[in-house]
Amino acid sequence: MKIAAAQLNFHVGNFEFNRKKIIDYIRSAVQKKIDLLVFPELAICGYPPRDFLEFNDFVEKCIASIESIALETKDIAVVIGGPSKNNTGKGKSLFNSAYVLVNGRVKEIIKKTLLPTYDVFDEYRYFEQSRVFNVIEIKGKNIGIAICEDLWNVGNNPLYTQTPALELKELGAEIIVNISASPFSYLQDSNRKEVLKENTEKTNIPIVYCNHVGAQTELIFDGGSFFMNSDGKVVKQSPFFSEDLLISELINGQFLKGNVQSGSKIQLIHDALIMGIKDYFKKLGFNKAVIGLSGGIDSAVTFALAVRALGNNNVFGVLMPSQYSSNHSIDDAKKLSENLGAPYKIVSIEEIYSVYNEKLKPLFKDLPFGLAEENLQARARGVLLMAISNKFGYIVLNTSNKSEAAVGYGTLYGDMCGGLSVLGDVYKTEVFELARYINKDAEVIPENSILKPPSAELRPDQKDSDSLPDYDVLDKVLFEYIENRKGPKELLKMGIDETVVNRVLRMVNSNEYKRYQTPPVLRISHKAFGMGRRMPIVAKYLL
Amino acid sequence: MKIAAAQLNFHVGNFEFNRKKIIDYIRSAVQKKIDLLVFPELAICGYPPRDFLEFNDFVEKCIASIESIALETKDIAVVIGGPSKNNTGKGKSLFNSAYVLVNGRVKEIIKKTLLPTYDVFDEYRYFEQSRVFNVIEIKGKNIGIAICEDLWNVGNNPLYTQTPALELKELGAEIIVNISASPFSYLQDSNRKEVLKENTEKTNIPIVYCNHVGAQTELIFDGGSFFMNSDGKVVKQSPFFSEDLLISELINGQFLKGNVQSGSKIQLIHDALIMGIKDYFKKLGFNKAVIGLSGGIDSAVTFALAVRALGNNNVFGVLMPSQYSSNHSIDDAKKLSENLGAPYKIVSIEEIYSVYNEKLKPLFKDLPFGLAEENLQARARGVLLMAISNKFGYIVLNTSNKSEAAVGYGTLYGDMCGGLSVLGDVYKTEVFELARYINKDAEVIPENSILKPPSAELRPDQKDSDSLPDYDVLDKVLFEYIENRKGPKELLKMGIDETVVNRVLRMVNSNEYKRYQTPPVLRISHKAFGMGRRMPIVAKYLL
Repeated sequence: MKIAAAQLNFHVGNFEFNRKKIIDYIRSAVQKKIDLLVFPELAICGYPPRDFLEFNDFVEKCIASIESIALETKDIAVVIGGPSKNNTGKGKSLFNSAYVLVNGRVKEIIKKTLLPTYDVFDEYRYFEQSRVFNVIEIKGKNIGIAICEDLWNVGNNPLYTQTPALELKELGAEIIVNISASPFSYLQDSNRKEVLKENTEKTNIPIVYCNHVGAQTELIFDGGSFFMNSDGKVVKQSPFFSEDLLISELINGQFLKGNVQSGSKIQLIHDALIMGIKDYFKKLGFNKAVIGLSGGIDSAVTFALAVRALGNNNVFGVLMPSQYSSNHSIDDAKKLSENLGAPYKIVSIEEIYSVYNEKLKPLFKDLPFGLAEENLQARARGVLLMAISNKFGYIVLNTSNKSEAAVGYGTLYGDMCGGLSVLGDVYKTEVFELARYINKDAEVIPENSILKPPSAELRPDQKDSDSLPDYDVLDKVLFEYIENRKGPKELLKMGIDETVVNRVLRMVNSNEYKRYQTPPVLRISHKAFGMGRRMPIVAKYLL
Repeated sequence: MKIAAAQLNFHVGNFEFNRKKIIDYIRSAVQKKIDLLVFPELAICGYPPRDFLEFNDFVEKCIASIESIALETKDIAVVIGGPSKNNTGKGKSLFNSAYVLVNGRVKEIIKKTLLPTYDVFDEYRYFEQSRVFNVIEIKGKNIGIAICEDLWNVGNNPLYTQTPALELKELGAEIIVNISASPFSYLQDSNRKEVLKENTEKTNIPIVYCNHVGAQTELIFDGGSFFMNSDGKVVKQSPFFSEDLLISELINGQFLKGNVQSGSKIQLIHDALIMGIKDYFKKLGFNKAVIGLSGGIDSAVTFALAVRALGNNNVFGVLMPSQYSSNHSIDDAKKLSENLGAPYKIVSIEEIYSVYNEKLKPLFKDLPFGLAEENLQARARGVLLMAISNKFGYIVLNTSNKSEAAVGYGTLYGDMCGGLSVLGDVYKTEVFELARYINKDAEVIPENSILKPPSAELRPDQKDSDSLPDYDVLDKVLFEYIENRKGPKELLKMGIDETVVNRVLRMVNSNEYKRYQTPPVLRISHKAFGMGRRMPIVAKYLL
């Protein structure tokens, strides 16, 4: 039996685009004599559709698309993810479903049982849980179909009481097909393989795993679809971050082998961010980016990634020096643009800054230079970038990193502006690693941008270390607090200094208002700022 | 039996503040010989705690607070909402619970059954559903305790399969206590009374309904706690938008009567927004606001509401005219400030705008005046407001209305800036109604601001109607699409012109990226922008 997993890049709500892509792959699979072709979870509408699922019109379009695709399945069996209506009159109005298309029609609709409702997942907001299991016979084989999270409980996940894989085994499944929408984090490929291996240990059934690829705003799907044999070994796997039709044949209950993928943490993050940028532009119908270049490492890394995503002629650098900018900043930024062969311009903010000061003088009188003046400079730059964006149809890429975003070391509407935050889930220490990785074959990011002490250059001789703990320490506390949900007592037990713990947690919690208004952040960790982290603004906890 | 509902304004995560307030009310209730004192849902930590619930430290603090409060209950029975741990090893780690405190200790923990997971509610993200029901005997009466949504199914709500009120009746409940965190919308008081009446129709049991009051960022709690007799009549009700200890006595199975509340839609919205502003400032520890005054109706209404919330000396108006500002705009804004006795200053943006243009000239060359230049003006104003905010510790109040926010008729980081959006859930047509309401006793908002055709004044002779359908039509389409989830076919069936429908839906869907970065919006309708409406940005649906 020949099975294929179509790891494709869909576009949320773009029904014509998604339908055409699916039909093209079905036709090509028919020619390749595939018996069973599998598409990812909610492929029909793209993932995540979010509250569009509350519109009947949207759901009707999903169903109409699937019915028209069914007509293409005379010589092949196809599994496609899509919403289906809950006609029981009880519970949420939809099921998250797998449509099985055979002989030109919808043969069966399999419904998801385990509905993730944590982090970036809101499935119980839309979907009713199914408690019914079914096995489908295709070409004489019993196929069990599970939808993503359905395989994330093998009896040891406290969140769930059902274990779909065991139910499918009970029903005689010989192969389990798992259609997924599993967003990237740098640990996710290993996690998936581990959990699915645990399934095979319980069931001894081989698994076909089909994931989305491509970015949908903040969520990046790495693909990495695979065939896993009954011994838990992945024997063939699609590449990360590109579309693929992964084919294998089941012979004597085992899948034939091919390539398997892996990658270092930084390599995966690098590739994920590039796909994140690329798809954001492509799916919005834009092709050019503008980035403010400070000479520092964050804007340099963002610029390099954007050039790799969009091409050097499509990324425009703007150097916006003030009286507080050091010479090396301008030199470093120029060198970066030259290394990348990307255009840049210099627009000084000195006069803009000075007109603002002059106009504010009657209000500010002789009050000393302070945060207001620092932020003014950052905002003058934000306004210039947005003007260029508006004039030429470029999208501003934000250059803030996760450490800054966490502690609020940034100016709202200033350096925190932009359509997309590229590094907002990358800690400063990881930004350095990314810079080294980008430079692995040749100097792209000027060595000086990597080596010099980080500075916002908003007043004379300013250094990040004036306002923040050392990034090594800061990032450790942030990671334990944000990613690992550790509280103050647990952080103290880890041996971190109490003053540092209290200071950092206070900074994080008192800056929720800033993060509320930042651009969407490309998610590369298991806990990113944005839709997966929902915090009160007006609260007083650890403050 | 004397029962009291303590409708209080808690502060999320401020355990000392909440605990002290609860203890003060318990002591005062003891003096008043109250037998049973009821506090709202999750009162112990404030509502909504959101992802703080994922921190063990936060949950431990809730439990420790409740245990220390229990010591105060030697002469009274108390019901308080708080999270409790799920020790079953199955499901989410917490229950949304009601702690029953009697004789100085926790006598019982009642757990919520119906967990709302829609709109602004994410309860299934945190809580496991309870399927166990219990009745507590207090002073010889059987009390059934239900937590908010628990009473929102009387067998006819398709979302749920359980009907807690019937279970409690079965167990012999003579009174049902409902502890709630039911956020305001202008229909919510009627909805609550209607649903709870349906409960009494099924059970014939009187109800004590205790709600939060006060605003927590975007969610405003109106209070309006009440006693409802077994015939479904509300016989005594707390005022809206203020703290209250509502007391009644149950005699022969019926509660003694008192005042009952009601209010017109616009009056309720007016009062809600004032509380929303007031609590945002108070809970963040700020007391002064700064608002950009354009002479138009949106900034005028925002200014008037802010003055009513914070006091005239605490609201600072900034007039920022450009060469495109009409004289009447400045006059109208001045008159508004004078009517309200609030200070204002004039800071022209002409020179700032012209320096920007000059600095951008080498890039923009001879490209014609356009959106970039319009937005530049709005952003120059945003930068001035933020500078004043930073310098003096004032919070910028955003003045965008819901119609503008919906169609993207506003400038990111310009007029869309601020700490809080006051009118972001108020359609333009409703802003006019609010202005009339504010002026009901005397002219506060200059008549000219109400009468003149709305204009952004970013180019000569600009009118909103150049870019948008008439607000009457626009708001109707928006309301049906946003609040009522109507799709294009349904809107056509309502007789709305097809060109208008397509144009408006396209504008709404293509501006999700702007709304993603706007300040939190005070929620006054049943579907506001923000946490209750979750849309993809990079999507292509109805575009």
